[in-house]
Amino acid sequence: MERIIASIITIGDELLIGQVIDTNSAFIAQELNKAGVWVKRRVAVGDSKEEIIRALNEESRDTNIIIITGGLGPTADDITKPVLCEYFGGRLVMNEDVRKHLMYLFEQVFRRPIIERNLKQAEVPDVCTVLPNARGTAPGMWFEKEGKVFVSLPGVPHEMKGLITNEVIPRLQQTFAMPFISHRTLLTAGIGESYIAETIRDWEEQLPAHLKLAYLPNYGMVRLRITGWSTNKTHLENELNTEFDKLKILVREWLVIDEDATLPMALHKLLRSRNKTMTTAESCTGGYIAHLITAIPGASNIYKGSIISYDNAIKISALQVSPATLQKNGAVSEEVVSEMAAGALASMNTDYALAVSGIMGPDGGTPEKPVGMVWVAAGDRNKLVTQKFQFRFDRDRNIEMTATQALNLLRKFIVENP
Amino acid sequence: MERIIASIITIGDELLIGQVIDTNSAFIAQELNKAGVWVKRRVAVGDSKEEIIRALNEESRDTNIIIITGGLGPTADDITKPVLCEYFGGRLVMNEDVRKHLMYLFEQVFRRPIIERNLKQAEVPDVCTVLPNARGTAPGMWFEKEGKVFVSLPGVPHEMKGLITNEVIPRLQQTFAMPFISHRTLLTAGIGESYIAETIRDWEEQLPAHLKLAYLPNYGMVRLRITGWSTNKTHLENELNTEFDKLKILVREWLVIDEDATLPMALHKLLRSRNKTMTTAESCTGGYIAHLITAIPGASNIYKGSIISYDNAIKISALQVSPATLQKNGAVSEEVVSEMAAGALASMNTDYALAVSGIMGPDGGTPEKPVGMVWVAAGDRNKLVTQKFQFRFDRDRNIEMTATQALNLLRKFIVENP
Repeated sequence: MERIIASIITIGDELLIGQVIDTNSAFIAQELNKAGVWVKRRVAVGDSKEEIIRALNEESRDTNIIIITGGLGPTADDITKPVLCEYFGGRLVMNEDVRKHLMYLFEQVFRRPIIERNLKQAEVPDVCTVLPNARGTAPGMWFEKEGKVFVSLPGVPHEMKGLITNEVIPRLQQTFAMPFISHRTLLTAGIGESYIAETIRDWEEQLPAHLKLAYLPNYGMVRLRITGWSTNKTHLENELNTEFDKLKILVREWLVIDEDATLPMALHKLLRSRNKTMTTAESCTGGYIAHLITAIPGASNIYKGSIISYDNAIKISALQVSPATLQKNGAVSEEVVSEMAAGALASMNTDYALAVSGIMGPDGGTPEKPVGMVWVAAGDRNKLVTQKFQFRFDRDRNIEMTATQALNLLRKFIVENP
Repeated sequence: MERIIASIITIGDELLIGQVIDTNSAFIAQELNKAGVWVKRRVAVGDSKEEIIRALNEESRDTNIIIITGGLGPTADDITKPVLCEYFGGRLVMNEDVRKHLMYLFEQVFRRPIIERNLKQAEVPDVCTVLPNARGTAPGMWFEKEGKVFVSLPGVPHEMKGLITNEVIPRLQQTFAMPFISHRTLLTAGIGESYIAETIRDWEEQLPAHLKLAYLPNYGMVRLRITGWSTNKTHLENELNTEFDKLKILVREWLVIDEDATLPMALHKLLRSRNKTMTTAESCTGGYIAHLITAIPGASNIYKGSIISYDNAIKISALQVSPATLQKNGAVSEEVVSEMAAGALASMNTDYALAVSGIMGPDGGTPEKPVGMVWVAAGDRNKLVTQKFQFRFDRDRNIEMTATQALNLLRKFIVENP
């Protein structure tokens, strides 16, 4: 069976000027991949007819599926629809279903009068199949040309996601006979990409050609993913399971979780399996660790709340840190994070606590306590472990690195102190 | 003067499978743009020799500059360097400066033994200029071919950023005569893209061809950006100032800030200008609002801390919400967010407070209080304003929308109650 190949085209000057980060392509690539479609290229072009047509020509050259997002809004810089209409040799006609949906949205949901500019969103090329967009105004459009499928979707992420999941993937599965693609992913922490590569070299070299290993490093963690493809699903799954088991043993020392999950998700799972709760007492991370925990559905099962004590006065009043400890050691110290963790355990009445204090930059560093220095404490009522980190570079990265290392310290504490 | 055109190639299977979101391209595009380089296309391809060469050929066809990131790591799936070496007709040679830098990093910074695989990162094509990477192991490489510049950079964001800022931009400015590009950006809230377009249509239509307006909608806010290009800097800046002043008047009702800043940055600026402080009492946003505030340098000037009261028990113990109020109205109610805000003002001793409580989903909704329902309170010791929101769709988006609307409610309160 031939592999089905796709390319993704994102349209919009905002992508080329860098004011918007393209998260759509990653979601589309993930969903296509799960369905057995290999994404070969992703291209971003501006709101220019010439560039859109060049991309349509080039991206359809040796692919089966071309997914296009963006440029379908109601404003003058959105030119995708007329360009597609011309490209596929159609003309714009009013679509009654889309018009009714627009009227419903404006009357019942947005509750504001519909204007001409919005109504034009109900005009679609007469050579496409309309994909209804339950979440927004611009419909998806499905074109077929010379055995290839072209799908145009709005660029608003939650609208695009609804269309991909509910319309595009099911229709692609009906249109193409897909080979089977499957993945196995695990997450490691505390070890560099090259050390892992060295450790698993013999195993990696003996992998058959249809299994491929990828290293995905991110903020001090490395995700390892084996991807396989085959026409025989059962055979492939067995093969992947065997190789994945070997890999897990090779990296067991640094293994966080043996699935495609993040560190906060691994911590969630660990706490739920033990029916325990946690809290955070955050200074320098300013609520970011709490956010990582609460961004995951079901957080209320394992998390009660946090004290963000950015100011020292709050460390004293809300976390019962002793003014003498602060005075003697400074806010960024082993003693202060230990008292913050103990205070959080007491005031939040949880099983575990995580406390952090550090200097994220760009200002606030001293020769003794430079930017990037962080103290972390993790533990329960019986025991606390502490660790000092020294990160470098910019504020965003220091906040991210601190959160990652802190969450991993707590995870290890829980694993090692059952 | 001719416009200088660039294309960005990002390399890595992880981009095509969607496990990594490409933030590098946005940064590179921004920096090139500021320097007067127009980015025409962005392409992502896999770790495949054939695809990399296709991209190098296609992207250099009608551009002056090709920036390549990724695929320079020490592992087997990173093939960019040998492919570039072959493409430009060179051979890999050990570079003594890079080798010394690697030794320094491993001995002094990482403090672990260097292995063969890492040392190979000091091998570079003999046909390139090496760009030193102060922040990591893989150096940048600068190639010139037929009047075009090709630059290869590591994909690790903070390493790539250092190289772009310190090496690539200054060298490009020496190599090309750049036309002048300039932008004016403002942020609006509380109004849709099409209403703005309708409101400013006459003004937009009279803009000269070398000034272009872009609408950048994001989470209930719309950023408007005018971009202009010219060989005459003074003339262009004057022209942009004149048009920007007109635009500001047209959208004054919804204007958050008249610069390229985010809502949290606008709130920072407002609080600093009045020498005031704020706090947050967050339930459903779980620390995300505090994070948005504290991610900005200098947050300690305007922010003291927060209580994240995910659990109702914490709302009572840490925020002095009355158990009777909770019992009678439920956690997601005007009464409870008002008491949360009052409790936060008292315990954090700030000038302003922002409190949120809602149901982010996917679970936890009821017919009376569906997923996406949120109450927000904002104010000071004398006065509180409250607002109810009903968002739809997924948890991530609901958290983001809640934070945006809450921050805007507080911003408006401060502006209207000086």
